[in-house]
Amino acid sequence: MDYDPSAYPSVAVTVDLVLLTLRRGALHALAVRRGEEPFTDRWALPGGFLRPGETLDAAAYRELDEETGLGPSAARHLEQLASYGDPERDPRMRVVTVAYLALAPALPDPVAGGDVVQARFVPVDTLLAEPLAFDHARILADGVERARSKLEYTPLAAAFCPPEFTIADLRVVYDTVWGTTLDPRNFHRKATGTPGFLEPVPRRAEGGPGRPAQLYRVGPIRVLHPALLRPRA
Amino acid sequence: MDYDPSAYPSVAVTVDLVLLTLRRGALHALAVRRGEEPFTDRWALPGGFLRPGETLDAAAYRELDEETGLGPSAARHLEQLASYGDPERDPRMRVVTVAYLALAPALPDPVAGGDVVQARFVPVDTLLAEPLAFDHARILADGVERARSKLEYTPLAAAFCPPEFTIADLRVVYDTVWGTTLDPRNFHRKATGTPGFLEPVPRRAEGGPGRPAQLYRVGPIRVLHPALLRPRA
Repeated sequence: MDYDPSAYPSVAVTVDLVLLTLRRGALHALAVRRGEEPFTDRWALPGGFLRPGETLDAAAYRELDEETGLGPSAARHLEQLASYGDPERDPRMRVVTVAYLALAPALPDPVAGGDVVQARFVPVDTLLAEPLAFDHARILADGVERARSKLEYTPLAAAFCPPEFTIADLRVVYDTVWGTTLDPRNFHRKATGTPGFLEPVPRRAEGGPGRPAQLYRVGPIRVLHPALLRPRA
Repeated sequence: MDYDPSAYPSVAVTVDLVLLTLRRGALHALAVRRGEEPFTDRWALPGGFLRPGETLDAAAYRELDEETGLGPSAARHLEQLASYGDPERDPRMRVVTVAYLALAPALPDPVAGGDVVQARFVPVDTLLAEPLAFDHARILADGVERARSKLEYTPLAAAFCPPEFTIADLRVVYDTVWGTTLDPRNFHRKATGTPGFLEPVPRRAEGGPGRPAQLYRVGPIRVLHPALLRPRA
């Protein structure tokens, strides 16, 4: 097997971030408006070049920090999504990008940092309705699909919530990400009746009319029955 | 956002392959014995450099073809596993590798092609018990874990079988990949009782003593109940 790195043309490697959060009842992604060629003025996913001596995960956390100004722990969940390497994806040179999916509870607007050019949370539907830079529409769509799918068989919906949340908070996550209107009673029964999915905490939600709702945190199980919460087609 | 590719040091990009198959009741992976530095004489995963103008998927299929000599369709399933880019993973230079997971039914021994140096199917347990080249032990372990996990919530076990198989063939896949001994009657009942998982074909298995067993092919559903087949811990 020929394995001499210098014998092959080199490639630039970037890390791009699909950071999803919920705002005003809609799924939003962090996006940056490009200020230069190529794809000037188009929305793009936040990202940047892998630095010497930096792992891929470290680059993803660094981008998260730089683009949100909220620190590397702004997201409750971060995982590698996939790598994208079509030869024509960047008109300037060969660039392979490693995309990450991050899920976050409601975040404040991004604080402009050194690397940030007009970073903003934009509704995913808005982003997917217009041409994005590079192959970012595909990467964003893949990230949203991964999130939708993982909500079905993992407790990852809780990553969109603060550490303690009500059952209604959680249902809003499912409804928003899936585009559904789940029955509140059914959802409550299934969510609280699945051993290990949620754990009640000794506190109740503050504010709001009526009796304060019970607060929960996510439990120990990592795999859910796929048909547990998904409504029948 | 600074996005000038020439401003950043370039990286070599490779594609590595975790090709899993079953042989003599054990999970095997395709491995190559390295004939040169670094890691001379160690087992490595088959792989090679991304070529100019080649997509990542095309590189994976090309490696599969070159390393097995069986054509790019030797595997019944191929998916991107993850990318690995620790700065020290290759002592010669920065190399980011995009790893693919491929699952195949029993294959003949690899046919030496232009790029093959002693490629061989080796039991996964053997490979994981000795030091592999680069970070290939981690990549292999991640590939095996992905396969184990996907057998739980997808019908992917069938990718280890020929297009038509018996329930006993399928049970052997689960037992081998999971290291379990599933109860044959229970397995038969659950596997045939899950709508959309398997479809009988109008043929029966040939050979063997007793009444020939019914043959099945994989059905249309893509997600299984995780607790369907997994024995209780």
